[in-house]
Amino acid sequence: MNAPRFATAEDAENAFYEAVARGDLEALMAVWADDEEIVCIHPTGLRLRGVAAIRESWRGIFAGNPQLTVHVTQSVRWTSMLLAVHSHVETLYIGSDTTPHGPMLTTNVFQRGANGWRLLSHHVSPAGEAVTEADDEARHTLH
Amino acid sequence: MNAPRFATAEDAENAFYEAVARGDLEALMAVWADDEEIVCIHPTGLRLRGVAAIRESWRGIFAGNPQLTVHVTQSVRWTSMLLAVHSHVETLYIGSDTTPHGPMLTTNVFQRGANGWRLLSHHVSPAGEAVTEADDEARHTLH
Repeated sequence: MNAPRFATAEDAENAFYEAVARGDLEALMAVWADDEEIVCIHPTGLRLRGVAAIRESWRGIFAGNPQLTVHVTQSVRWTSMLLAVHSHVETLYIGSDTTPHGPMLTTNVFQRGANGWRLLSHHVSPAGEAVTEADDEARHTLH
Repeated sequence: MNAPRFATAEDAENAFYEAVARGDLEALMAVWADDEEIVCIHPTGLRLRGVAAIRESWRGIFAGNPQLTVHVTQSVRWTSMLLAVHSHVETLYIGSDTTPHGPMLTTNVFQRGANGWRLLSHHVSPAGEAVTEADDEARHTLH
């Protein structure tokens, strides 16, 4: 498949969560940068470095969970020309079950390269207590 | 106190961990950006937004633990003109006790502004298993 080109970090992030929802490993891996070291930290506390380790971990996740829907709220975004960072609260839904799992706390890092925006780092960890803050949004473009 | 000016993200990060080691709340808060929304996620899973909430949480941490030494390894760094992101494995030492606590996984985000580099986001979470990877370093400057 031709590598997709994401015009914004948000486009890359949406493609990431859509690939998770579809259990589509190739689409998921196409969101990651392929010319930089990449890091993925799962909610279990496993830290993976590099394409091969990250691909293998997601292959295992998708094998066990056919459908994972991630709902993202309370976002804070910092954007510059070549790097963008998004901080979110994630809630996870498994299959058609409407029971929310989480919340989890996420820091996503994106890089703009020759082929558009790609994911460099995805750090997810469990929230230690219920997050009751309103679902507000914050966007910051650095000048 | 006059606000310090950090010439690099590494300088800001070193000042952050030195302030933690000294339990110096003013020095710690001087590392954070004061003109952007800031986010701090503690290993307990508590996500704080804004200077007031972050200051109060560290005030409490310093009140209970007079000396916290953080040893950082296995770093991956991505740097651009205005944003820099560092991913580390942290080991924590409390007081003069040589027992290591952790490991913990960290994503630090820095912004370059008019007053040099400052911290935007500090996301720490427990590592779920022993990290046995070698203490290698990776630095990436985006072009």
